[in-house]
Amino acid sequence: MKYAIGVDFGTESGRAVLVDVATGAELANAVHEFANGVIDRHLPAPDEDVRLEPDWALQDPDDYIETFRATIPAVLAQTGVDPADVIGVGIDFTACTMVPTTAEGTPLCRLPEFRRNPHSWVKLWKHHAAQPEADRINSVAASRGEDWLPRYGGKISSEWFYSKSLQILDEAPDVYRAADRLIEAADWVIWQLTGVETRNACTAGYKAIWSKSDGFPEGSFFAELNPGFKSVVDDKMSRSIASLGSAAGGLTAEAASWTGLRPGTPVAVANVDAHVSVPAVGVVDPGTLVAVMGTSTCHLALGRELALAEGMCGVVEDGIVPGLFGFEAGQSAVGDIFAWFTKRAVPPDVHEAARAAGSSVHEVLERDAARLRPGESGLLALDWWNGNRSILVDVDLSGLLIGATLATEPAEIYRALLEATAFGTRTIIESLEAAGVGIDRVVACGGLPERNELLMQLSADITGRSFEVAASTQAPALGSAMHAAVAVGAAGGGYDTIQDATAAMVRPSVRTYEPNSSTKAVYDALYAEYRTLHDYFGRGANDVMKTLRRMRTAS
Amino acid sequence: MKYAIGVDFGTESGRAVLVDVATGAELANAVHEFANGVIDRHLPAPDEDVRLEPDWALQDPDDYIETFRATIPAVLAQTGVDPADVIGVGIDFTACTMVPTTAEGTPLCRLPEFRRNPHSWVKLWKHHAAQPEADRINSVAASRGEDWLPRYGGKISSEWFYSKSLQILDEAPDVYRAADRLIEAADWVIWQLTGVETRNACTAGYKAIWSKSDGFPEGSFFAELNPGFKSVVDDKMSRSIASLGSAAGGLTAEAASWTGLRPGTPVAVANVDAHVSVPAVGVVDPGTLVAVMGTSTCHLALGRELALAEGMCGVVEDGIVPGLFGFEAGQSAVGDIFAWFTKRAVPPDVHEAARAAGSSVHEVLERDAARLRPGESGLLALDWWNGNRSILVDVDLSGLLIGATLATEPAEIYRALLEATAFGTRTIIESLEAAGVGIDRVVACGGLPERNELLMQLSADITGRSFEVAASTQAPALGSAMHAAVAVGAAGGGYDTIQDATAAMVRPSVRTYEPNSSTKAVYDALYAEYRTLHDYFGRGANDVMKTLRRMRTAS
Repeated sequence: MKYAIGVDFGTESGRAVLVDVATGAELANAVHEFANGVIDRHLPAPDEDVRLEPDWALQDPDDYIETFRATIPAVLAQTGVDPADVIGVGIDFTACTMVPTTAEGTPLCRLPEFRRNPHSWVKLWKHHAAQPEADRINSVAASRGEDWLPRYGGKISSEWFYSKSLQILDEAPDVYRAADRLIEAADWVIWQLTGVETRNACTAGYKAIWSKSDGFPEGSFFAELNPGFKSVVDDKMSRSIASLGSAAGGLTAEAASWTGLRPGTPVAVANVDAHVSVPAVGVVDPGTLVAVMGTSTCHLALGRELALAEGMCGVVEDGIVPGLFGFEAGQSAVGDIFAWFTKRAVPPDVHEAARAAGSSVHEVLERDAARLRPGESGLLALDWWNGNRSILVDVDLSGLLIGATLATEPAEIYRALLEATAFGTRTIIESLEAAGVGIDRVVACGGLPERNELLMQLSADITGRSFEVAASTQAPALGSAMHAAVAVGAAGGGYDTIQDATAAMVRPSVRTYEPNSSTKAVYDALYAEYRTLHDYFGRGANDVMKTLRRMRTAS
Repeated sequence: MKYAIGVDFGTESGRAVLVDVATGAELANAVHEFANGVIDRHLPAPDEDVRLEPDWALQDPDDYIETFRATIPAVLAQTGVDPADVIGVGIDFTACTMVPTTAEGTPLCRLPEFRRNPHSWVKLWKHHAAQPEADRINSVAASRGEDWLPRYGGKISSEWFYSKSLQILDEAPDVYRAADRLIEAADWVIWQLTGVETRNACTAGYKAIWSKSDGFPEGSFFAELNPGFKSVVDDKMSRSIASLGSAAGGLTAEAASWTGLRPGTPVAVANVDAHVSVPAVGVVDPGTLVAVMGTSTCHLALGRELALAEGMCGVVEDGIVPGLFGFEAGQSAVGDIFAWFTKRAVPPDVHEAARAAGSSVHEVLERDAARLRPGESGLLALDWWNGNRSILVDVDLSGLLIGATLATEPAEIYRALLEATAFGTRTIIESLEAAGVGIDRVVACGGLPERNELLMQLSADITGRSFEVAASTQAPALGSAMHAAVAVGAAGGGYDTIQDATAAMVRPSVRTYEPNSSTKAVYDALYAEYRTLHDYFGRGANDVMKTLRRMRTAS
C-alpha cells in the first residue's frame, strides 16, 4: 500500500488528508486552526498597538508551518501508516496570498526590524486594501491596450499579486526594497518543505498575469505604474514557472522532523485550492464545469484552445490541467447571500420553527421554499450582494429584489435568492459557450452542494445542465494528494499523468440532479427577465447601483 | 354651550366624538367594535356554511346602527351634556362601501330570502372581487373615449360603486333586480337616522363618477357594460346630489331612541372619512396638501379650477369643500409596508432589543434609522408593495429594493422604505403642481404622523415642504361634527360655512417638520434615481413586475 498526503490551506485553518494512492480513499484527516487566524484589526501580540486599516487581511506564515507540524503527524498516527509508504506530499492554498521574504525565504515579518510593519506580513487573498493599486493597473493596462487584459475579464483584481505588491511599494518602500522575494504563500510553503524555490503555473497564470506563450507583462508596463516597480519580475519573482504535478524537491531534514515523514519524501509544486479541485472531482477534459460552491462560488472549466469568454477571472494555458486551457469564473457571493438573509432578514417565527423542529433556519426556509412552484413567489433577484465578478467584473454592483408585496414570505425571498445565484451561474455558462467553450454538465463541490438540495435542483433546472455532487468533501486536499502521486510518477508508485491519477483515485459523483424539463419554460422566462435587469443595471444603461454606492461612501 | 356629534365609521369599528361647537374641543369619544367586523371568509352565524371567495369583504349594516346605539349615549353620559344642547349630528364613512336595499331602505341581507346570498350584504371598501367588472368598465370607457375617465387617473377602481354594482348584476341578478336602491353606506346611515334618502356629493363624485357639470355617465355607457345595467342611475340611485354641509333632515323618533338625542335633532348629509378630514385639519383653501397617513395614505388638495393631474384618484367640484375642486390622490401602502417589514423581514435580535428596551420594533428601527445620514444606507426602494395608485394607477406593480450588500442592516432597509414612501408623496405633489395645483405645505393626520417622527422629517426633507401634524387625532369625527354645525347654520347655533366652522373649531397644528436644507442635494439626487426607476418599471419600458405577477398567478 502506498499513500500520499494532501495539505489544504484555507482561510482559517489548514487540513491534511492521507489518501490511498491506489483508490483515492481518504483514510484520515486532521485540521489545524491557525493561531493568528485572519489578522484584520491589529498585529498579534505583543504588537496589538499596530492597528490595521479597513479592508486589510493578513496572516502569520508561522501558522502554515505549524499546520504541517500538527496535521501530518496526526494523520500518520490515526492510520498507523509507515512514513516509508508515503510516496509524496502535495499542497494547495488560497490565492493570491503572498508574502515578502529574504533571498533565503525568511518572511520579513519574522525580522525584528520589520515585524511591526503590517506590510511585512502575509497578505491574505481577501486583503482588499490594494484597490487604488488595482485601479492604476487597470487604467494603465487599458490605456496601453495590453494584450493580456482580455484574458482577465478586462480587469485585474485588488486581490491579485501585482496589486498587493504595488501596495507594498507605494506604502512601505523600505519593505519592498528589503524583499528579495515576493512570493505566493503556496510556493513559500513548498520552499519551506523542500528548500527549493518554485513558482507554480496556476498562481503565476491566474494571479500574476503569466502565460505560457507570452510570459509576464513587460517592464515598461510595470514602470508606468511606478518607476521602482519596473523590475518586479526580475528582482522579486522568478521567470521559471513549474508545471502542475511536477516535483519541487524532497523534504528537508527539518521539514521531515516537523511532519514525521522521511527526509527526501517527494513534494509536488503548489496548487490553488479551487483549481486543484477540478481533477479531484474527476474532471480532466473539456465539457464540464466544476463549481466550487461555498460562501462564494468559483467556476472552472477546461478547453483545448484559447478563448476569450466575457467576464472570466482568467484563462491560463496549463493553469489547471497540463495541455489544456483552464478557464476560471466566479460569483462573488453565493452562500454569503443566504447567510446574510438568514441572519439579517428572517423574522423570529422562522427561527422559532427551526428551534422547535431541531433544524437550522436554512433547513426550515429550504423546506418551505421547496414547496413553492417556479414563479409562484412573484419575486426576482439579482445576486449581487457582493458585486458581480463574472461576467460583469464590477465590485460596485449591489443586490436587487423585485416583486415584493404585502404577502411576501421569507421562504419566498429565500427561494428567489437561490434562484438568483443559479441565474448567475447560467450567465457564466452562456458566456463560456458563446466563446466556444461548451459546458454539458456541472460537477459541484465545496460546502454548499451536500447540504442544499434545493439549491442544487434549482441550479440544474435553471442552467439546463445536470448538477453532480462530487464524492469527496475534501476535494482540494484530495487533489493535492493526487498531484503528489503524479509528481513521483508511476515509477515512484504514483501515476505519470493527472489523467491517470484521476481515473484511479476519484470516486464517482454521489448524486446527480437532472434538470426538470417541466420547469424549463418558466425558468427560461424568468432568466430572460434576469438578463434584462442584469444588462440594464450592469452595463451602464442605469448606473444607479454605482451612484448609490458613491453616495454611501460620500455620506 | 352648544355641541355637535361626529360619528366616524371605520373598517373595524365606529367612533362618536362630542365636540364643543364654539371651540372644536373634543370633549368625549366612544368606540364600538363591529360585532361582525370585516366579513371575509363566511357569512355570520347561523350561515357560516356560506363561504366567501378570495378578495371578498362584506359588512353587516346592523353593526352601523349598533354603533349609534352604543356610542352616542356613551358620549352624552361621559359629559353629562343635555341632548337639547346638541345642535346636530354628522357622520363620515369609508367609501365606496355600498349596500343594496329596498325602496324603504331595508338592506336586502335583512330579508330572509336573500340573507344567505353574499351579494345582499354591504360590500366594504376593500372588497376586491369586482376586478373583472372594473376591467370591463375601464376598457369600455377607454374605447368610448369617455370625458370623465381622465378625471379618475384614467382608471376606475374595483373598489368603486359601479364595479361593485355591476358585480351584483353579473353574479346575482336576482339581488340586483330586488334592489330598489344601491346606496353608499354613508348615505344609508343618514337615511336610517332621518328617514330621508340623500346622496352626498363626495361619494357621488369620487366613487360614482358624478360631476356637478356633467352629472353621471350616460345610459349608453352602462348599457355597453351590460344591457341590464343601462338604467342603474335612474332605477337604483338618485340624480339629486346633496352638498356637503347641508342638512339631510332631523332624527326620527326611532333614531332618537337609539341615541338618546332629541327627535328632530338636525343631521348633516354624509361625508367620506378622508375628505372630511380636510377642513378638520384646517384646510379650506388651495395650496395645502392634506395627507391622511395610515396603512395607506390618501392625499387631498383643493383648487379653484378643474385640472387633470396625472394619476389622481379623482377630481370633483364641491367634492371636499363647496366652491372648490377637490383633488384626491393615494399611495396604496404606507404604514402597511412598514408593518410588513417589521413582521416578515426583521431578525430576532431587533425584536430582542425592542423587548429589552420596552419599546416596539418600529421604535428600535426608527431610532437606528434616524442615526443614518441620507444616502448612507446605499439603498433605494420603490414603495409599490401594494401596487401604485398615484400617479401610475397600476395595481400590478410591486415592491423593489436595490443596493443591498452583505453588510446591509434592517434599520437601513427600514429607512429606505420610509424614504420610498416620501419619494412617492413627492411624485404626487409634482404631478399636482405640473397640472397647476400648487402645493406649498402639507398637513398630515391619521395614525402615522403622531408616532413616526423620522417619517415626518424625511417626508419634509424629501418633498421640500413643511409637514405639519394636525392637532386632532380624530380628524374625521371632528370634521363630521363641523359639518353638523354647518348644516344648522349660524342661526341654529352653528356656522354658515365650513370656512367659518374651520376658523372657530380647528386648533393649530401641534408640530411642524421643516425641510432640512442640508439634505436637499442628496435627496434630490436620490429622488432623481427613484424617478428613473419609477418610470422604467412603471411606464412600460420594463414590464417585469407585471410579468412576475402573471407568472405568480399562473403558477
